[in-house]
Order: sequence, then C-alpha cells, then structure tokens
Amino acid sequence: MTDRASDPSAQRGPWDCLLLGGTVATLAQGAGYGVIEDAALGWRDGVITFVGTRSQLPDAAEMLAHEVIDAQGSWITPGLVDCHTHAVFAGNRAGEFEQRLRGASYEEIARSGGGIVSSVRATREASEADLFAQSLPRAHALRDDGVTTLEIKSGYGLDYENERKMLRVARQLGEELGINVRTTFLGAHALPPEFEGRADDYIDAVCEWLPRLHDEGLVDAVDAFCERIGFTLAQTRRVFELAASLGLPVKLHADQLSDGAGAALVAEFSGLSADHVEHTSEIGVRAMAQAGTVAVLLPGAFHCLRETLLPPLDAFRRHGVPMAVATDCNPGTSPLQSLRLAMSLACTHFRLTPEEALRGATTHAARALGLRDRGLLAVGMRADLARWNINQPAELAYWLGGDPLIALYSAGNRIR
Amino acid sequence: MTDRASDPSAQRGPWDCLLLGGTVATLAQGAGYGVIEDAALGWRDGVITFVGTRSQLPDAAEMLAHEVIDAQGSWITPGLVDCHTHAVFAGNRAGEFEQRLRGASYEEIARSGGGIVSSVRATREASEADLFAQSLPRAHALRDDGVTTLEIKSGYGLDYENERKMLRVARQLGEELGINVRTTFLGAHALPPEFEGRADDYIDAVCEWLPRLHDEGLVDAVDAFCERIGFTLAQTRRVFELAASLGLPVKLHADQLSDGAGAALVAEFSGLSADHVEHTSEIGVRAMAQAGTVAVLLPGAFHCLRETLLPPLDAFRRHGVPMAVATDCNPGTSPLQSLRLAMSLACTHFRLTPEEALRGATTHAARALGLRDRGLLAVGMRADLARWNINQPAELAYWLGGDPLIALYSAGNRIR
Ligand SMILES: [Zn+2]
Ligand SMILES: [Zn+2]
Repeated sequence: MTDRASDPSAQRGPWDCLLLGGTVATLAQGAGYGVIEDAALGWRDGVITFVGTRSQLPDAAEMLAHEVIDAQGSWITPGLVDCHTHAVFAGNRAGEFEQRLRGASYEEIARSGGGIVSSVRATREASEADLFAQSLPRAHALRDDGVTTLEIKSGYGLDYENERKMLRVARQLGEELGINVRTTFLGAHALPPEFEGRADDYIDAVCEWLPRLHDEGLVDAVDAFCERIGFTLAQTRRVFELAASLGLPVKLHADQLSDGAGAALVAEFSGLSADHVEHTSEIGVRAMAQAGTVAVLLPGAFHCLRETLLPPLDAFRRHGVPMAVATDCNPGTSPLQSLRLAMSLACTHFRLTPEEALRGATTHAARALGLRDRGLLAVGMRADLARWNINQPAELAYWLGGDPLIALYSAGNRIR
Repeated sequence: MTDRASDPSAQRGPWDCLLLGGTVATLAQGAGYGVIEDAALGWRDGVITFVGTRSQLPDAAEMLAHEVIDAQGSWITPGLVDCHTHAVFAGNRAGEFEQRLRGASYEEIARSGGGIVSSVRATREASEADLFAQSLPRAHALRDDGVTTLEIKSGYGLDYENERKMLRVARQLGEELGINVRTTFLGAHALPPEFEGRADDYIDAVCEWLPRLHDEGLVDAVDAFCERIGFTLAQTRRVFELAASLGLPVKLHADQLSDGAGAALVAEFSGLSADHVEHTSEIGVRAMAQAGTVAVLLPGAFHCLRETLLPPLDAFRRHGVPMAVATDCNPGTSPLQSLRLAMSLACTHFRLTPEEALRGATTHAARALGLRDRGLLAVGMRADLARWNINQPAELAYWLGGDPLIALYSAGNRIR
C-alpha cells in the first residue's frame, strides 16, 4: 500500500503534464476524428491518464499537475507514425533523377552505375558515423513534421556487416532525436552484385544473418521485396518461415509492379502489412482482411514514378482492410521527407479523405508496426502527441509544405 | 574625391562579407548551372562585388572583409524568387478539400458557400492585423525554404478598401520577414457577388481603384484572370490599357482552362508574363517570344486539380520563351508553401530538368517580375543568395520536403 503523502510521484499530483483548452482529435473510434473541443489531456510517466473535456476534469486538477500548458487555438492529434521508410542510406540519386529528366534511358543510367546498386555501393563505403550523419537530416525532417514513431528498413547493405551497420544507425537516430525507431530487416531487398545469378544462395546468407542480428536486438520485424525483379514467392517464404520461428513479425513489399500474390503470402503468415499493393487482386485483399494485415499505401513512389494504376482502395474499404500511409523515404523512387506530404499525395492521387489519411498516418500505421500502445489518444496509450497550428484536421493533408507543428511529445517528453 | 583612409566604409575593406570555399551555381550563363568550385563570393552595401574562385581573389582579401564565412561543403545559389502567389488571404479551403474528397460535387460545394467567394468573404471580414497574422506563416514558410523575393497578388478583396488592405499586408510581410515583396494588383480576379451580371461595371470600378492604389505606392504590377469563367479579352484589355497609361507592367492568368488567346494579349502589351498557359497555342507562344514575355508554370495547381494537359513546353523551348516556376500559393487550387516543392512538381509533372526548374525559380522568375538586378550571381547584382546543405544543385528539385537551407541573405543581410 502506498501512502499518497510519502510517494514522491504522487506529490506531483496525477499528471506530469496537462494540456488545456485545445481541440483534440483522438481517432479513438473506428470512424470520425473523435473531436473533443475545449479539451483536457493529461499524462503521467509517459502514458495518457486523462482525455476529455475540460469540464470533465476533477476539481483543482490544475493544482495537481506538474506542468499545465495552455493549448487554446491549437489541435492535438496522436504523434504521426511513419511505418515504411528506407531513411538510412548514403549518397542520393539526384544525379540519376537529373539524367533521367535530361532524357537518359534506364539502360544508360544502369550502365553508368545508377539504380539501387549505387545506393548499395555508397552505403557500404560509408562508415557508421558517416551513415548516421547523412541519414540524420532526413529523420530530423520527418520528426520536425510530426513523426514520433519511425520505421526504418535495412536493405542497402546486403551483407552482414553493412546490414548490421544500417540497423545500428537506425537505432542511433531514434536515440538522437527522441523518437521511437522500429527497425525492419530487409536483407531480401535486392540481389547484391557478388551473388548475381545465385539468388537462392543469397537467401541462404540472409537466413544466416537474421538470427545473429536478432540476437543483438537489432530487428523488430522482417520484410522482403517480392516481385519479378526482386525475390520469388518461394524465396520470400523461406525468409518468412525463419522469421516466424524466431517470433518476428513479417511484412512485405508486395504487388507494386505486378500481381505476384505477395499480399496473400504475407497474410498467410499473419503479417503486419503488405506494402505498395497497387496490383493486389481481390483474392489478396480478402486474405489480408482475414489475417488482419494492413495495406500500407506509398503515394510518394506512385507520384515519383508517375504510376497510374491505383491500389484497390474500394476493395480494401469493402473488406475492412485498414489502410496506412507512409513516406517510403528512399533515394530512388520516393525522396520524400514529410509524412504530411505523403498524406496530401494520398488524398490527391488516391482520393483518400483527409480523415483516412490521418488515420493512415497514425492508428493504422501503428497497427502496421504491431504497436497497440499508440496511434490514437486514449487513457492507457503512450503520450505520443502533436500540437498543430491549424483550424481543422483536414489541414494536415491539405497544405503542401509549411510548418504547422507547434510541439511534439514522445512518451510525454517534448522532443520539438 | 574620397580619400580611402578617411572613408569609414573603405576601412572595412572592399567587402562587407566574403563567403569562401563553397560551390557556387551562378546561373549567369544562358545554359548550365555556372558552377564555380572552391569559390569566393563577396558583397558590399547589398551588392555582389566579387564572384570567382578563391584563387582569383586578390592577396590578403580576407583581411579586407568585415566578415568571412567558411562555406565549405555547401552550395550557394541565387535566392529563390516566387513570382506568382496569392499568399495573402484569410481562412482556408481545407473544409472544401475534405468535402470534395468525401464525394461532394462542385455544385454542392458552391451551394454551401465554398469556392473563391468563401475566401473573399473571409478576407473581407478579417481586420488588417488579422489578415497579416493569418498570412505570415505562409510567407514565413516560403522564406524559410529559400525565397528572398516574393510576389503577392491582391484579388480576394474585390472592393477598394479590401484590395488596399491586402496590398498593405503584402508590403508588411516583406518588412517583417526581411524579404523583398512585389505586389500585383489583381482586382480583376473574380466578379464579387454585389456585381453579379455586371462585369463591365465591375471593371469600371477596378479601373477607378487602380490609380489610387498606385498613388499610394501599393502596386508594382497589374494582373487579371482572363478565362471563360473570368474576364473577357476586352475587359482585360481595358485594365491593361489603364496600367500602361500609368506606366505599370502587366501579367496575366492566361489559357489555364482553355485557349482564350490570353498569352497573345499580354504579349501585345509587352507583358512581363503569361501564367498557367496550359492551353496556349503556338500562335500565343510566338507572340510571347517576340515580346519577351515569360511563361510562368504553376505545377501546384496542375497537381492539385489533377490536370493532364501539359503546357506547350517544347514550343516554349523552341521559341526561346523563358519558363519560370512558381508556387501559385492560394487556398483553392494550390495550397503550396514551398517553392522547392513547386520545382519538384515541375520536374515530375512537366518533365522540366532540375536546371530548368532552378532557373525557373531564380533567373526567369526575376524576369517575370521585371527585376534585372537578381536571379543570378554576378558582380553588380543584389546579394540575394541561399546556402544549401546539398551535394549537387539537382537536389533542390529532387527532395520532397526536408530542410536543406543553411542560410539566406537578402541584399547582403542574413534573414535566416
Ligand atoms: Zn519500400
Ligand atoms: Zn494565380
């Protein structure tokens, strides 16, 4: 039994911090923003302990809070969750971007050393410190635009030491920026040059690295690139079976360029998410719905590649497949450093509603990472929240650019 | 004759500031970035007095500079020029954006008070101080992304007092942010409700306001919206004739929705620019080329409206019509607060090269404002420059989002 007077944390009252007077979009229900006007939102030890209207607060509540913040005139949403990025890489592909716009063909670019191999080469050549320094501005930009949870994949190392280096850098970024980084091992991203013509041997190697990286605590989930130009279903299955045996959740780059039945495969493994999914068939959608697999939409790549085939959005809606929205931040197909901008692109290109886009960048994105403690604002959830200088939540997807973020909290700590 | 020893400014030596060691993209030639590696760039009294390599500097040059900045590892470009915005307005249209994505038709939105009239209503209702406060974050975001010269149009007041209020706020934004604001009177933007069915009478009123606003020093240029849903060629001509008689340059929202021969009209008046120009015919392009009229491309509106018809880019190139790129920052069709992002959209949607996009947001944009003292880096030009954390200039159009700006100077004063 704790005596209230003798418990030092109790002396601070029930709240470390109490936000008063803003408008909260809790996203706590399945539909609607969950708006609370003239709201109060309090937390303790990084966990939300009160969400409601100011009038629902107990008497003298403000006296019991260590810190009280006047949030009037602002909106408060869950911290944004970017559930699909390749934000750790060295170099960039602006030169290739320029070559292409000057009329070079993909073949010419490949011959001059472009494409994913150039990112692999640069990432391998970079020291861990250099890789960190080059990746930091991107993670910084994502955070400063509202992201409190950031997924980062490996996949430009393609050998044990360099995959490990990428995952270590990802963890370091989280520590540096005060955000929660979730690492995904994507050894099966592309076939490195030294394995040309020996994809099965490469998958052997990937399967040898994974348990070691997992032992080091560097792997939160496992991903693969399952595509005609990537790995086969059989190869992907081998990686997934190993992940399952290690108790690691899986996700998949699926059906981006063609319907390769990737969505159905990841669903078979009760995977967290199938990502891209432009070409996923109704069968794949049904499998995802049954498995509770999230569809991660990546409108940045769609935009940059000037694709025209939309993901099967209506089928996702009809079957109740949750849709997440992520930046896919990567040097080749989506050099996108703003999750709000991904939300905007999802509305413009995919015709998502601003509410779907916001839920996709919070609630559903958290679910795509297997995280049930964030992505909406309710008692018991992490105090990951963003305060915005906006008049309605649709503005988060409406503006392109700008800087509406007033403050950002991760587990109750102000990080911006 | 001034004696060097007795002239206090000479004692500071020939430079107020000397940037040393970065890479400069001067854009000083008609083609190419005009790259100078290991560069030196100095200015005095707001005007560039030296651009060259460090080795070309006279001996002991650093001793003669008031301030020396080590620019190693960064790129220096002209400050960006956003030559077409409607950044001063009250309210926004995020609600309308959301309604539309929820399936409302344009008619339903118009019936519920949406469209440009809602911006006119909100702008009229706002006090000058409120309009300033609401517009400031947008101008701030544009500046913090590299803009040193910002054009802002009136056109949501649509009566004398409110057009005047907008133009005054535009000037105040420039003072507040240390940037150079160029005002454009766009009284002929839309027909206000009180003039319904009396467009010619409204043009009478516009022609009565213009000289008064000009007398107050509030008008740098004159613009109109010439379109089937805007004003006719004859009405536009009346406004232009008045502008010409006042010695004011003209520009035009031309041929956005249909080929209305707007480009040819503005060329007839030796206009600074024809803007949008998606539907401009070869005849219009030829007239522009002869008149030296700039084509201002607005990829933000193209993107948000999901248009598909490209402006006649090859014809502009063939006839030597300079192409500028601008944000068109406005609440209805382009809620875009980043000129870098407009450059990116110009590359993705219009297939401009990154070099064309950068020239379009500097040299050609300055020309679209009739400004010959900026938009490239050469001796005698204003010291308007941006320092970027990039490895090649193509990165300015390659990234979506992010914050690569290190420092920004307007007439030699550091403003960010
Ligand atoms: Zn990806
Ligand atoms: Zn415009």
